[in-house]
Formats: sequence, structure tokens, C-alpha cells
Amino acid sequence: MWPDRRLLDLFGIEHPILQAPMAGPCYADMAIAVAQAGGLGALPMATFSADQARGEWQIIRQQTDKPINLNFFCHEPPVPDAAREAAWRQRLRPYYLELGIDPDGNIPGSNRTPFDDSLCRMVEEFRPAVVSFHFGLPEEPLLARVRAAGAKIISSATSVAEAKWLEAHGVDAIIAQGAEAGGHRGMFLGGDPLDVALTQAGTMALVPQVVDAVKVPVIAAGGIADSRGIVASLALGAAGVQIGTAYLFSPEARISKPHRAALAAASDNGTALTNIFTGRPARGLMNRAMRELGPLSRAVPAFPLAGGALAPLKSTAEAAGSGDFGSLWAGQAVGLGRPESAGDITRRLAAEALSKLVH
Amino acid sequence: MWPDRRLLDLFGIEHPILQAPMAGPCYADMAIAVAQAGGLGALPMATFSADQARGEWQIIRQQTDKPINLNFFCHEPPVPDAAREAAWRQRLRPYYLELGIDPDGNIPGSNRTPFDDSLCRMVEEFRPAVVSFHFGLPEEPLLARVRAAGAKIISSATSVAEAKWLEAHGVDAIIAQGAEAGGHRGMFLGGDPLDVALTQAGTMALVPQVVDAVKVPVIAAGGIADSRGIVASLALGAAGVQIGTAYLFSPEARISKPHRAALAAASDNGTALTNIFTGRPARGLMNRAMRELGPLSRAVPAFPLAGGALAPLKSTAEAAGSGDFGSLWAGQAVGLGRPESAGDITRRLAAEALSKLVH
Repeated sequence: MWPDRRLLDLFGIEHPILQAPMAGPCYADMAIAVAQAGGLGALPMATFSADQARGEWQIIRQQTDKPINLNFFCHEPPVPDAAREAAWRQRLRPYYLELGIDPDGNIPGSNRTPFDDSLCRMVEEFRPAVVSFHFGLPEEPLLARVRAAGAKIISSATSVAEAKWLEAHGVDAIIAQGAEAGGHRGMFLGGDPLDVALTQAGTMALVPQVVDAVKVPVIAAGGIADSRGIVASLALGAAGVQIGTAYLFSPEARISKPHRAALAAASDNGTALTNIFTGRPARGLMNRAMRELGPLSRAVPAFPLAGGALAPLKSTAEAAGSGDFGSLWAGQAVGLGRPESAGDITRRLAAEALSKLVH
Repeated sequence: MWPDRRLLDLFGIEHPILQAPMAGPCYADMAIAVAQAGGLGALPMATFSADQARGEWQIIRQQTDKPINLNFFCHEPPVPDAAREAAWRQRLRPYYLELGIDPDGNIPGSNRTPFDDSLCRMVEEFRPAVVSFHFGLPEEPLLARVRAAGAKIISSATSVAEAKWLEAHGVDAIIAQGAEAGGHRGMFLGGDPLDVALTQAGTMALVPQVVDAVKVPVIAAGGIADSRGIVASLALGAAGVQIGTAYLFSPEARISKPHRAALAAASDNGTALTNIFTGRPARGLMNRAMRELGPLSRAVPAFPLAGGALAPLKSTAEAAGSGDFGSLWAGQAVGLGRPESAGDITRRLAAEALSKLVH
């Protein structure tokens, strides 16, 4: 029996384990597997077209009626800056030439859709049990519609100040995202994310300080990839955990071959924060592009525009088996991951944690 | 009863709580208070003269026969670089003028003595129960003399690779120093510390990966300032913890008034890694000097020489009640600290942790 039932009651789940909604790797099959194993499965919507989103949701609902978390980004849409874009393309020009790509060819758009009326209509139609946001929360009228659709609302805090802000805006639970976490830092207060990232706390320090500052349940994230991390997070006062990187090792994760190979070879000190792939700080395995262009740079276009110009380099490199130019998202607990299905990971971590908690 | 007795048996202590040997704030009285309360008190030797070291040790031995940890730095002595020093003084010139200090006056030396024959003779004379090193280990002949003097030997690892190196060199236990920790990062492998610092893991991720990699007991450090952190660290597989920042709140800590005021006002996201105060990355509360000169800079002289030119600015600013130019070392759990004697902190944390561990 889990000693803290707050998240179980709030979400209607069996284990306080949330699958991180990783936009790119996560589709319906991972969400279904985690949900069927008793965790909170998640479907990230930020990179889906409307048709894809609908298709994935239909697959989920055909296979499970367990609670699912629909995840959305709510960043400010970027103001295009032609000069900055051009300078960035110029910076990448030698790599285009090296890989035999026309440096003046068209580049794809970088499709991270912030939460808006049309996505909100989907929530109203799909009626997921949980809606999570990254980079803060949407405007209150949209948030009220999500609430009215019956969804519990959660979002990530990277600091105590953000946690208090989220609680004041009515979230049902808060993900305390420690610096160890892979993928995008969720920061939304304090100004330029590159400056904010310098001062953000690790999970061990962040979780108890957030727990002390808010009344809603806190979900620990960052550096948690096995049952030791789950039990430790509960000791820090968290009501549960969100796990990302460990699920990247599952066959359900749709990641490139170079990404999967890099995960298998990674150790504790193989990641860094970088903004070169999207324009916002995110943690990934160090590769050539991060070393040579960053890992943090003031020259990259605003989120999410930076991704466009790197996309042709990424796809060409990946076709040749190289992870030199793609984002290889991973958190600092990557060395604890092992190949295992998403359902098995969820069941094993829950069982191991429960065996340590029961005396 | 502590479930894991490895450190208690190894060091001869009652609670698996190590006081971090913070060079500057820590003198005999803090080590005595922690030792009498059942933890492992520590005396940092890096900034003491021989007379000071002897005097502090005599005070300790007059008041307690409990085990004490003598701590030494073992960095490579820097190669003086006159051009770099001159450029750094030039960089600081506007601040000297602003504070009314002669910018061409003499500056004090920056006295961090690496472990050598004369310090080793002190170990042989004092015969402390434990000797800890920061920045790796001394050369094998010196290490053999420490071992022959009967001391248990410990050192800090900031990565799994460093932990394996330390174990291969015969340490009795390893401090896994997560990125949350205040003061100097203990890194000694991997090249330029400014690059290495970018990839270092937080405590939640580092501890279990180190535990999996070595057989000796692991001591968790970084972000631990209350009993929640202790219980969490044990859940991660650590045999005990090392605590620094929480002890800075004690009256025994010899810190400046601005430092004490900054600690009391600090929150989770108030610190950053900086090398401007000494030449090596260390975590402290953000202040004017860090903002304007760093927080990380390639221009500062090598460790520990950087401290000399900032010293007159620090002392003049502090005399005026300002912490603008002094290092305000603190870890990311600073928001959990509270004013309390070093003995009371040790007893309270041990009692609270034990009450959570006993079922």
C-alpha cells in the first residue's frame, strides 16, 4: 500500500508514477502501456497535427479506459526575427556543406503549437482525466474551459516561486522539475531562460522546498529512474514521481537509432543543458552540435524556431547512423535505464518501491 | 537504530552525519559540537597556518576524544601567470576605484595549501580518526603515510568515473557530491573544471549511480539540509550524508554579517556556480561580483590565485555591511536552514531521521 494516496485519489490511478509526456518519443502505445500497468500514461500533443492527435487518442480509447494525461506546451509564440534566423543559418552553413545539403534550400517549420482555442476544443471533446502544461499555464479563460471539461490540471515548477504561482492559479498538483531532468526545462518566470537556468536547483534540494511552500501535492521529477528514486522522492515529501528517461529505453519510445545507442552508452555525466535544438534550455546527451554550437548560445532563434534550421542536418546525419546533429534528450539518471517495455518498467518500479515501503 | 551501520563502524560515530569541512567558516568549536552530538565533526586545514592548525587541534583534543575528520585540499599548485594576473587586476580596477582602494597596492596572497610533507607530519602527530581530501587524493607515498597513521581516508567524487578512481586508489568511503552542494566542486578528472561542471549530476541522479559503481560506502552530499534529505539519501543507497549549508546557520560558523544575512534571505534559486572568487567552480549565493564578473569566467587566474585580487574589495565592502564582493558560499537547500547550534542541528536531524526510519 502506498503511504501517500493523494495522487492516487486525485487522478484515479493505482501507482503514483507519471510517465513524462515526451513530445517526439511518446505515442498512444506508451501511454496505454503505462496506464494499464497502473501509472498515469501521457500523450504529448505539442508536436502532433490535429489529425495525429485525434488518431492517437482514438487508439488510446480503443484499448484502455484508464486515466490519461494530455500534455500541452503553453509558451509565448515567438516573434520571427529574420536577421537572427539568417545569422543562425549562416552559422550552420559549414555543416550543411559538410553533409552535402543545399545551405540555401527550404527548411521545415518547427511545429510546437502552444495551447489555444482549437486544442482546448480537443480537450472538451476528448475529456481526458488529466491535462498537464509545460512552460506555465494558458490564459485563465482557456484554463477555465479545461477545468469545466473535468480534467485535473498540473504543470511544472522549476523553482519555489513558480510553484507558488501555479498554486495561486489553481493547479491540482505541481511537478517539481529538478535540474537533473531530461528534455525542456519548464521555467516560465524570472526572465531569460538562459539566465534562469544557471540558478535552478536539483531535485534533492527543490522538492522539500516546494513541499514546504505549497499545499497541493508535489510530484518529483528529475534524476528518478528506479525504485530508489521513488522512495527517496516520497521521503522528501513528494506524493509521487514523474519519470521520463527510463521510458526512453522501452521499445514503445519512438527515438532514432543513434539516440537509442547513445542512451545505452551513457553515464551520469554525459548530459548538459542546451538551447541549440529548439531555442530553450533542455537537457540532452552531449553531442557534436552541442559541443560546437553551444551547449548554451545567445545566437539561436527563439523557441521553437531554432529547430527548423537544424532539422535537415539531423535527418541527414541520422540516415548515416550519426547522432551528431539531433537532440538526444536524456536526464542525468540515464545510467540507470535498461531496455524493458513501458508496462514492465511501471510494474517493476511500483513493486520494488512498495516492497521497500512495506515493513 | 540506523539501518545501515557501515559508516558508524568505519568512523566510530553514533549518527551517519558528517559535518562538511568548510574552510573559512569552520573552527574547532563546530567540530567539537558536531562530534559531541554523535556526528563526524571536521576541521578544514586548507586556510590555516601551521600555528592555527595546531591551536585548533589542541582545543579539540582538550574538549573531546570523539573521532574528528581533518580535511585537506590536494589541488595542483598553480603556475603563476603574470599576464593573466595583471589582466584580472585591470578588470577589477573600476571596483577598486569605486570603493576607494588603491588599485596598484599590494594584494594578499591566496593561501590554500595543498597537502604536502609538512601537513602529512601533522596528521602523523595528531592521528585523527579520519582524513578527507578535496580535489582528488595526494600522491601515493603521502597517502600511505596517512593510512599508516591510522586514519580512515575519504574524498569527494562528482561523477561515477571519479568514484571508481577513488576506490581504485584505496579510499575507505566516497562522498558523492551532487551539483546542489555549496562551496567548491570537488572534481579532479576530465579536464578543465569549467567544462566538467556543465555535465555534473545532481544528488538524486549521482548517488544511486555511484552506489552501483563502487563497493565502499557512499556518503551523499548536496541539497541535504534536513531529515527528509537524510532519509532520501539512505533510500538512494547512501550509507550517510555530509551536510554543509545547514551548519552555516549555526552560531559556530565564522561567516561575515553580509553572508549570514544573505543566507537568512535566500531561496532555492539564489545560488550559482562561480569561479571568480578562487579560480575553481564553487556554489554561492548570487551577488554583484558574480553577476558582473561571471558567474563563470575564463579570465580569472588559476585556483587559488583568483582570491587575492578580490580580497581588498571583499573586506572593504564587508566593513560597509555589503556582501557584493565576497564569496557567499551556500548550497541549493539553503532555504531549509535555520539558526540553531551545530550540536542541536546534529541531534535534531538524527532524531527526526531515526523517527522516520523506525517503524
